[in-house]
Parts: sequence; C-alpha cells; structure tokens
Amino acid sequence: MAYEQLKQTVFDINIALQKSGLVVLTWGNASGVDRDAESIGGKGVMAIKPSGVKYDKLTPNDIVVLSIATGQVIEGKARPSSDTPTHLYLYQQFPNVGGVVHTHSQYATTFAQAHRDIPCLGTTHADHFYGTVPCTRPMTADEIKTEYEHNTGVVIVEQFKKGGIDPDDVPGVLVASHAPFVWGATPAKALENAIALESIALMQLGAYQLNPKVQAVPQVLLDKHFKRKHGPGAYYGQK
Amino acid sequence: MAYEQLKQTVFDINIALQKSGLVVLTWGNASGVDRDAESIGGKGVMAIKPSGVKYDKLTPNDIVVLSIATGQVIEGKARPSSDTPTHLYLYQQFPNVGGVVHTHSQYATTFAQAHRDIPCLGTTHADHFYGTVPCTRPMTADEIKTEYEHNTGVVIVEQFKKGGIDPDDVPGVLVASHAPFVWGATPAKALENAIALESIALMQLGAYQLNPKVQAVPQVLLDKHFKRKHGPGAYYGQK
Amino acid sequence: MAYEQLKQTVFDINIALQKSGLVVLTWGNASGVDRDAESIGGKGVMAIKPSGVKYDKLTPNDIVVLSIATGQVIEGKARPSSDTPTHLYLYQQFPNVGGVVHTHSQYATTFAQAHRDIPCLGTTHADHFYGTVPCTRPMTADEIKTEYEHNTGVVIVEQFKKGGIDPDDVPGVLVASHAPFVWGATPAKALENAIALESIALMQLGAYQLNPKVQAVPQVLLDKHFKRKHGPGAYYGQK
Amino acid sequence: MAYEQLKQTVFDINIALQKSGLVVLTWGNASGVDRDAESIGGKGVMAIKPSGVKYDKLTPNDIVVLSIATGQVIEGKARPSSDTPTHLYLYQQFPNVGGVVHTHSQYATTFAQAHRDIPCLGTTHADHFYGTVPCTRPMTADEIKTEYEHNTGVVIVEQFKKGGIDPDDVPGVLVASHAPFVWGATPAKALENAIALESIALMQLGAYQLNPKVQAVPQVLLDKHFKRKHGPGAYYGQK
Repeated sequence: MAYEQLKQTVFDINIALQKSGLVVLTWGNASGVDRDAESIGGKGVMAIKPSGVKYDKLTPNDIVVLSIATGQVIEGKARPSSDTPTHLYLYQQFPNVGGVVHTHSQYATTFAQAHRDIPCLGTTHADHFYGTVPCTRPMTADEIKTEYEHNTGVVIVEQFKKGGIDPDDVPGVLVASHAPFVWGATPAKALENAIALESIALMQLGAYQLNPKVQAVPQVLLDKHFKRKHGPGAYYGQK
Repeated sequence: MAYEQLKQTVFDINIALQKSGLVVLTWGNASGVDRDAESIGGKGVMAIKPSGVKYDKLTPNDIVVLSIATGQVIEGKARPSSDTPTHLYLYQQFPNVGGVVHTHSQYATTFAQAHRDIPCLGTTHADHFYGTVPCTRPMTADEIKTEYEHNTGVVIVEQFKKGGIDPDDVPGVLVASHAPFVWGATPAKALENAIALESIALMQLGAYQLNPKVQAVPQVLLDKHFKRKHGPGAYYGQK
Repeated sequence: MAYEQLKQTVFDINIALQKSGLVVLTWGNASGVDRDAESIGGKGVMAIKPSGVKYDKLTPNDIVVLSIATGQVIEGKARPSSDTPTHLYLYQQFPNVGGVVHTHSQYATTFAQAHRDIPCLGTTHADHFYGTVPCTRPMTADEIKTEYEHNTGVVIVEQFKKGGIDPDDVPGVLVASHAPFVWGATPAKALENAIALESIALMQLGAYQLNPKVQAVPQVLLDKHFKRKHGPGAYYGQK
Repeated sequence: MAYEQLKQTVFDINIALQKSGLVVLTWGNASGVDRDAESIGGKGVMAIKPSGVKYDKLTPNDIVVLSIATGQVIEGKARPSSDTPTHLYLYQQFPNVGGVVHTHSQYATTFAQAHRDIPCLGTTHADHFYGTVPCTRPMTADEIKTEYEHNTGVVIVEQFKKGGIDPDDVPGVLVASHAPFVWGATPAKALENAIALESIALMQLGAYQLNPKVQAVPQVLLDKHFKRKHGPGAYYGQK
C-alpha cells in the first residue's frame, strides 16, 4: 500500500492550518481521505495528525492512516489525534466530505461556548455556508462519559438530520461548549471554510452589538451568493 | 494598444491590498482606469483582477482590461472578477474616480451586515471621508436575481444621489448585507481610503459601546480636517 | 555550584514568553526552580528574569538565582524582577509548581481589572484549568504599603485555600486590579497555561456579549477534558 | 549648528513608532527636543517628522528642526508635520517634556471619539500614568477655525491646569473627537507611554463590558505602582 500522497496532503494542510492563525498551541487538527484506496473492512482510508505533536516537529511520516470503515490504524507509529473518532464518524456519515478541520479558533469557539448558532448575516457567509451554521445541543452525561469523541460526531450528524441540513451546503458546525468542526470536498476546501467561519463569527459578534435585532439575509441573496460559487450555475473564479 | 502600465499599476495595488491585511482568502479586488486610453465604444479602459485567483499566483499579465463604455474585454485571457459590473458602473457614474477597491474587511463589513451607516465621530474619519459613510438600502429580489453585480453599482449610485453626497468627498460606501466598496482618484488612494474605513469602523464599534449616544463631530471640525488634506486650502503633506 | 541549565531554561522561557505575544513592553517575567539543587537555607533554588531589562538585551547570564527558602540571591549581578517575592511565595506554598509566568496579557488582565473570575465555559478551558480561574480579593491598604509583592503571593494562596482549589488543577489566578499569575509543573507548562488563559479570556468576553446568562459547563464535561490530558487516565498526546 | 544627534534620535523614534503598530497609514508623528541647544529666540530646539511623508521614505535628513521659542524652522527643507504647533505648545508649557508622540492608535482613539476619560483600573495603568488620563473638552468653533493645531495644545494644557494634573505624572491626554497625544522625559519614554496607553484603552473597553460599574483603583495601589517605577523610591529596573 502507498498512502504517500494522502499523507503529504494531510501534512501540508496541517501546516497550512497552523499558518492560518486559527490554531493556538496544539488546539487543532486536520484530516483527509482517499475513499478509493485499499483498506481494511472495505475501500477507503483516512489520514490524520498525531495527537498533541507540535507543528514544528511534525513530518509527513508522522501522519497516521486508518480504515474509514473500522477505524483501525493501517500505517503510522504515532497515536492519532484524540479527536479521530469524530473525524471518522463524519466521513462515515457524510459521503462527499474529503477533508475535516477542527480548531478552537477564537471567535467561532466564542459562539460555541455561548451555545449560539451563526445565521447568515451577509454575503461573506453566503459565499461559503448556505444558511445558518448550527450549534449542536449539549451532549448528555452518558455521551460524554463513554466514547466521547465518537458521540461528538453523533450529535453533529443528529443536528444536521434533525434540521434537514445538507452537509455539502453547510460545511461546518459548532459543537456546544467545545469548538467548530468544518469540512469540505478536499482538505484545502475544509481549511478555507474554517477560515471563513472564523471571519464570519468575528463580524457576527460586532453586528449583534451594533444591531441586536439584525436579521438573516433573504433567501434570494443567499441563493445568489452561494450559487455564484457552487453548483452548475457557478460563475465565480476561472473555468 | 499598450495597457502595460495600467496592468502593472492594478497588479501592484492588488498585491498591496493583500499585504494590507484587509483581505481574507480571495475576498477582495482592486481596479484602476485610464480614461484617455483608446478603447471600444469611446475612450477609456478599466483593468481589474481576474476572478478567484489567489494573490500568490497573480502576475501582471493576468490583469484583465475592459472598455469602460461597453464592458467588453479588450485584453486578457482570464475571466475578470465577478464584481466587475459593479466597478464598471461606478467608473461610468462617478467621473473622477480612478481606482476602486472592494474588500470584506472585517469591521467595515460588520457595519454593512448590521445595516448601519458610519457617521463621522472623529478626525481620523474627517481626514478621509467628508461626512457619513452611508450604508445602502437592501437590494430587492429582482435586483438580486438579474444583473446582481450591476445592480450593486446601481444601489450605490442611488444612495449617493438620493443623499446628495458627492462621491469625491465621501469615497466609499457599505453595501447592505455585503461589504464596502471604496474609491479614490487613483488605485493607491482607493486603497488608502479602504484602510482608513476599516480602522474607522473598528473605532466606531468601540465608541458606541463606551457611549451609545455619541454624536457626529460638528461641521466646523469636519471642514477643518477634510480641507486640511483636500482641495485648494490643503496644507497637509509636502507641496 | 552550577545553575547553568536552570538559567538557560529560564532564559529560554522568557524569550518564548516575549515571542508568544502575551507581553507588551517589559510587562512580564518567567521563573523556574530546581528543587533539588544545593542552596542557602536548605535545598532548592529559583531563577528569574532581572527587573525591567528589555528582552532583546537579555542573556542567560543575566538570570538571577535565589534561594527558595530565604530569597537570598545566590548568583547573578542584576536586581531580580520586582515581582520576585510573589514568585518565591508561590514556590514555597505550592510544592509541585516548577515554573511561574506573570504577564499583563490583555484579555486576562481585562478580567483582573473588572474583578471577575473566569468560569469554565468550554473545553478549551477544561483542557488546561479544572474549573473556575479565580480572581483574588482586592488587597488591603496595609498589604499594599508593606511587602506588596510578598502579599500579592499571600492573597493568591489565601484564595486557593479559602476556595478549596488545588493549584495543580487550576494553575493560574487573576490578581484583582493587577494581572494574571500562571504556573505549571515546568516553566514551559506555565507558559502554555498562560497562553491558554489569554485565549480563554478573549473568548469569555465575547461569550458574555452573546449570552449574558451563559453557564459553566457541567462537571462531567470538565472531568472528561481535564482528565483526557492530565493524570493516570490521560490519552491525549503521545505515550 | 549641529543637530545631527537630535535628528537621528527623532528619526529613530519615528521608525520605532511605526514598528510599534500604533500607526495606520501616516497617522502619527514623534518629536524630541534639545532644550540646551543654540536656537532662535533663546535656547532650545525641537525636531519633528515632516508632514505626510511615508515612513519607508523617511531619512534622518528629512527631520525638521525648529526653535521652541518662536516655531521658526532652523534646519530642514521639508514642511514639518501639520501637528507641529501642538507639539511646540506642549514643549513650551510643560518644561520637563523631552519627547511627544501623536498617534491615532485604535483603542485610545476610540475613547477620544467617545469623549471618555480613562480612569486607572489597574496596575498596568498605574505603572505609567498616575491617575486618570483625561479627555479634553471639545474645541470651540473659533478654536478650530483659527490656529487649530496651536489651540489643540491650548485645550490640552487647559485640561491639565483646570484638573490640577501634573503632566510629569500623567504623560498623556485624549483630545476629544481626535486622538491621543503622549509625552515623556525622552522621545523613547513618550513612545513607551503611547504603547502603554493603547494597551490600557483596549483593556478598559473590555472591563466596562464585564463590569459597567468598575471603579478606579484605590489611591494606595496607584501610589505603590507609580512610585515603584518613578521618583526617589523607585525599585523597578536596574540601578
């Protein structure tokens, strides 16, 4: 087996994540998948940062490769990120996701700690998230005590199903009392969305100060901006 | 035709825009004009950043040149910024404008998202904007659905006409639920005004917290500071 | 006697402290101890930054070494930090502390100036501090007039005893009207906790704006996160 | 006459001012004096940054030297900063001031725009300013129309006389609707105080959010911290 390219991609995105300024200390990790690669328990592998390793010590070889289906480590000597079961569950449940980024970025985490959704107040938001970025319900004591990281994924997925939210349209969530998880079709897209979410959260905090009754943008503006960048009618960027 | 100098100027200002810290990801673009250059449909060309190209990949040759009168591309292989029709309309309607900068800079965008004008609370503001920087009315569903970017220009110009505001005196606007557009006699002046607007917005947000009833400065102070820097009586800077 | 290694460690952590962005001007200092080293008045020495020296002038040889038991200078020609008696008292009273970092980092100091505790609103907090980071009571006039820096240590220790707080579990405090003191098993851990505290304070300030009634996380989540990183059941990081 | 050393000092401090992050665009200037140098109208010269020159173009030879007594330019071809009459008046009225720094630093300017004093909420403040940093009264229409910059100095000095404030103890002020002027025994001390003021203002803004009724620290704490650093009993720093 040769997961060199995936490991390199996941290494690169973790370094880019650190340079983005979203990560304080080691509070963050990024993963990616190759859904066609040979694996244990069916096709598909996920690669992720090892747990608690400082970014300046990280090498591509430290990246850990696991089976998406079973979670077993296939390659890598280090212990994978403690958040691995959350990433795994997102990949299992959201079939189009190719990369997941978890940070404690300061303004997004502020909303998570206040148990507040981030509704769409403007086009910056609409360019990346097709509607409200939801905050999950608090986890129960049982969910926390047993298989905590797995259950973090469970409450995220529950939130999207309950709210009828398509994870391809709203590629991120705030886990209540914790922090954001953000995803995308590729690890690079996931990072881009995590950067967007942090910027949106900072602006939202100020907008509420200036105008506590500020409303979400109308659907037509949300449609315009999201679809200008996504889907068959997109006309943003180069062909 | 030779638009080399204009393309270089517009390239330079886009790079300077990115270094200014006003731009997150690719949320920003800058344009400039040569109103005397040969063109299609009369004299006058505009040059602008291509759409969605990352700043570290940009070269002067990627800059797209269009007719101000007709909007047709004269030079350049890339698709111009999706905001091109907004820039074009501003150049068409505001005859002294030589450069336009669009960003989603965080504090100015916060005001745009809260649908709040930025009145002049101090001399920092008065040095650059001769009175309130207005926020436009929200766009209608029809304006959004058809020719959205062109109509963004239309609501900006409407705001200035309705309010009796001279765009040479107040070189910037907040588009409601969107973000600022800022201009000036040259692209460099437009960028300077965009930097000023962001700083003003940050300070305004805090001033409202400290003193919700804070009033705009008296006309005499506005006159003093704006005219110290602009017009025949200016005495700021070197002769 | 040879305190070279300790002096180098304390020099390194002071440089890292400055690079962390927590320190404006010279408002900060870090110390470390070797509890087994030969000393005056029993074993144990503390090393600390000299007072008011700019970080770019600092060398390892400027670090001052003192007896933990008596506070006498054992090595070093410079005057030790004016906050030395506070550091000393913390090492005397908190036997597992190996490093102390004092800063006026902006958001943590904001809470100290507002005389507000920082309760645990999320997992970022729980990963580093096992519960509320307390703010001390204001110091009395007598405590301020005589042996001020020593008494700063006294009110800190009083706060922990009175509140039944274990300093190994909550490695930091806000001194009312002053600023944070943060500690850890090593100087590097103390700095890590100081960085965490600053980030937590920034997020707390925003969370209160978004939701003035936000509550501390339940005990089970606090247990989960703190114990995932600390103590016998820890599974964060590499073995 | 040879003002080389003074010009170099004032050049250096202007460069340091820009690196400090307090200055956006060209909104700032620093000056220094040599009170013993030969001059016009008695001894004493002041050196200041030329008006509107970008920091990356500035050389020591651009620094303009003027008579403190008469304001006449003695050396230098460039037009001095438009704020020169304010600096001059401060040097004329405050005999121990050796350097003046003017910025539009964002948080201090926020307070100036809100017409709010900055009372002493903590030791960071007390280390640099012995009590409230006052905001001036608004200037009258006449003061603004004629000799505006000179009158800016006049309202500053009036504020200190009216309030019985010693400018050596409180080396800074907020000019209402404008921005801070900060000073010190040397240009370097003035810059240090300007950096301190900005940090204090940021923390004050947050402290008011957390605790709108927060009170100034007691006199005994103010005495302790200010006198630990200033005057005959100082014990901060090296001998």
